[in-house]
Amino acid sequence: MSSATDVTTPLARFLVESRWEDIPAPVRHEGKRTLLNSLGAALGGCADPAIGKALAVLRQFSGQPEATVIGCAERLDALNAAFINAAAANVFDFDDTHLPTVIHPAAPVVPAVLALVERQRLSGSDLLHALILGVEVECRVGNSVTPYHYSRGWHITSTCGVIGAAAAAGKLLGLDHPQMIWALGLAANQACGLVESLGSMAKSVSVGNAPRNGIVAALLAQQGFTAAPQTLEGPRGFAHVMGDRPALALIDKGLGTTWESARNTYKPYPCGIVLHPVIDALLELRAKNGLRAESVERVTVRGHPLLRQRTDRPRPRSGREAQVSLQHTSGVCFIHGAAGLAQYTDASAREPAVIAFGEKVEIQDDPAVPVEAAIVTLRTTDGRTLTHEIRHALGSLGRPMSDGEIEAKVRDLAAFGGSGCEIDQLIEAAWGLERRDDAAAVVRLTAKRPQ
Amino acid sequence: MSSATDVTTPLARFLVESRWEDIPAPVRHEGKRTLLNSLGAALGGCADPAIGKALAVLRQFSGQPEATVIGCAERLDALNAAFINAAAANVFDFDDTHLPTVIHPAAPVVPAVLALVERQRLSGSDLLHALILGVEVECRVGNSVTPYHYSRGWHITSTCGVIGAAAAAGKLLGLDHPQMIWALGLAANQACGLVESLGSMAKSVSVGNAPRNGIVAALLAQQGFTAAPQTLEGPRGFAHVMGDRPALALIDKGLGTTWESARNTYKPYPCGIVLHPVIDALLELRAKNGLRAESVERVTVRGHPLLRQRTDRPRPRSGREAQVSLQHTSGVCFIHGAAGLAQYTDASAREPAVIAFGEKVEIQDDPAVPVEAAIVTLRTTDGRTLTHEIRHALGSLGRPMSDGEIEAKVRDLAAFGGSGCEIDQLIEAAWGLERRDDAAAVVRLTAKRPQ
Repeated sequence: MSSATDVTTPLARFLVESRWEDIPAPVRHEGKRTLLNSLGAALGGCADPAIGKALAVLRQFSGQPEATVIGCAERLDALNAAFINAAAANVFDFDDTHLPTVIHPAAPVVPAVLALVERQRLSGSDLLHALILGVEVECRVGNSVTPYHYSRGWHITSTCGVIGAAAAAGKLLGLDHPQMIWALGLAANQACGLVESLGSMAKSVSVGNAPRNGIVAALLAQQGFTAAPQTLEGPRGFAHVMGDRPALALIDKGLGTTWESARNTYKPYPCGIVLHPVIDALLELRAKNGLRAESVERVTVRGHPLLRQRTDRPRPRSGREAQVSLQHTSGVCFIHGAAGLAQYTDASAREPAVIAFGEKVEIQDDPAVPVEAAIVTLRTTDGRTLTHEIRHALGSLGRPMSDGEIEAKVRDLAAFGGSGCEIDQLIEAAWGLERRDDAAAVVRLTAKRPQ
Repeated sequence: MSSATDVTTPLARFLVESRWEDIPAPVRHEGKRTLLNSLGAALGGCADPAIGKALAVLRQFSGQPEATVIGCAERLDALNAAFINAAAANVFDFDDTHLPTVIHPAAPVVPAVLALVERQRLSGSDLLHALILGVEVECRVGNSVTPYHYSRGWHITSTCGVIGAAAAAGKLLGLDHPQMIWALGLAANQACGLVESLGSMAKSVSVGNAPRNGIVAALLAQQGFTAAPQTLEGPRGFAHVMGDRPALALIDKGLGTTWESARNTYKPYPCGIVLHPVIDALLELRAKNGLRAESVERVTVRGHPLLRQRTDRPRPRSGREAQVSLQHTSGVCFIHGAAGLAQYTDASAREPAVIAFGEKVEIQDDPAVPVEAAIVTLRTTDGRTLTHEIRHALGSLGRPMSDGEIEAKVRDLAAFGGSGCEIDQLIEAAWGLERRDDAAAVVRLTAKRPQ
């Protein structure tokens, strides 16, 4: 834990020496889930206005059309494609979450890997190996500065993302040990992104830059472009400048033995995570009892005080506000029987039936209820009282989404984005990634299909 | 000074409303000095290995060859050219200095302006106006977080540079008020760069990214890509996250009346600024007394204790170490009668005569001597004692470099870089910039001339 701990050097050595054979089967499988979930998130987000505006600017500066832009027919150079793909994967905050740090690990790392496998011949296991190592580095660096870093105002997905992206890119480029030290340093020197930007399109710029700048870091390092040897842990380096008494030892403790990347989680619903157990309970109560909205008189939600603090928001004015509204969420669960992307649009926030249902919702604080749990009680118009308790929300580490649930989420997202990409082939290719000789062929399945 | 101060909105309004007619003549003239000094620095730095390596990577991703790369025959797209030009201007730390913040103001701002005037028809006064406003914003934002920001470990030229670059780019693009607020916010969200990176090539990446990302911020804002309205001053915004109790009022106090950009200074020597008064004294003593190195028995330098702390470095092992060596600097002053770029190469650090002369140097601490001053006493082999006192080093605010001295510096730098560019025409064009209809023609004079 001391500030004298040397971390950049052992971290770089781990990255250089890691072999695909060393990655345990469950970690490999989690890597595929991370990939698939992220591709789905990007296929859903690719049509967002922020992505269109970013494309309108960046295509003016694109080099050769070497890389796939997820959900688009257009191709861009590797750097610009990586920017757009990361921004799209994260734009709805419907991507993955490493809960200890609240990093969305895939958005910065996956696009770096996708872009590079279209520049040189690499296999599916090369892709997966780099992805797993990139996420591992990103989350471990995040652990070292948590919780100060985020609470100070650093958008941790952006700041740690560029470092993870450089690690992944460096692995694919086959950097040697000094080069990998430089790649990590060059990436750390580019770490940025402010929590103030959340809620505006600005978030997408630092997320988009993360893989872009991570690739640049790795390519520069390959050319012998140097960085300070202790950019992560030095006195004016990443962890001390952007952290407060950083736990540097967390960066390399158990490297290769314990896997942060295997602790990734996936959101089943595109809204605030504290709402997830409430959604589980409401959908379950509605389905099991065959209830319709009109037959519900009152909804009482008992939850951790954070639930009220974050989501007591009647009549949200936009889809973005609806994502953190318990009233809206309860309404869509009962009116639509779903809490997917279509339920969090600006139009959805204005639906009279949803607003009316929201008026029936009451919140009870109970500090004894964990954040990932909730107890929901319905009083029906015919006098029944129905209660359902959720201990672990779907998607939490206690009740992870199944592979099938991730597939279904990805299909929904792809349909929402409307690119008409080869979704069945893509899902099949992701699960069978280790057997593919040409990773680029898998990436190209994410392109928009002419319709 | 309160955290509730609203600064992004008035700063953006100032930028949008500023007219060329409002800029006082001395501020305009200082803008030309800033431009010329920076072009010279880039012409000198363009042949550095770090720049060659960056070019080797970035040219692979360049779009159309629309923008001049200073000192090169090659052209790149505007974003990549801006990166290379900023890195080149700053690579030797021989560019300008805003002393209150230690920002090198021109390196991030000038390349943003150069790149944009080659994309649309703009006049010389448009170029100069945007440059002045960009430097103004950069230094004012820097003032608000000084001294905490740099001492915490933020490379302030990089962090504030991207914001200044966005301001300059936004002015050239003619952004309206909401767009300018977004441009500043998008830039602040990309602020990065660590002091740990100084002394390695990594520094050039965050300096290079500053104009690149500033241009992207302004172009995105022009598309309606939003940012938080208080990204500079909000609770999780730039000043609070990267500063400590920031003096927010310094950002807009006296805007349009007092000019930070007019307080810019230029280094006459490419080495640590605390060495500058010593160089002035040694060159003066050598010239006035017709002394040769062999006739000097002992050199005693009396200076502020910072002089010893920063530069007591006998036998430096590289040009970079020589830049902060009093012993080396004293040697080259007496052996070569100069302290230019040629005196701070790796080869120069190994010169036996220079090393031998360094052995004769003694340092005396005197807290009563200001940092920009020094008192140098020589004992000659024939028994004389000669003393010279410098109160204000050449290049300090107390004794600024003259226009002619800046010209001479620029010629030296251009010769050192070896690009053979049209240096006479360039110098003439810079001084006459306000009379030029086509700013792009001036920029093209910085290109390498076929030889």
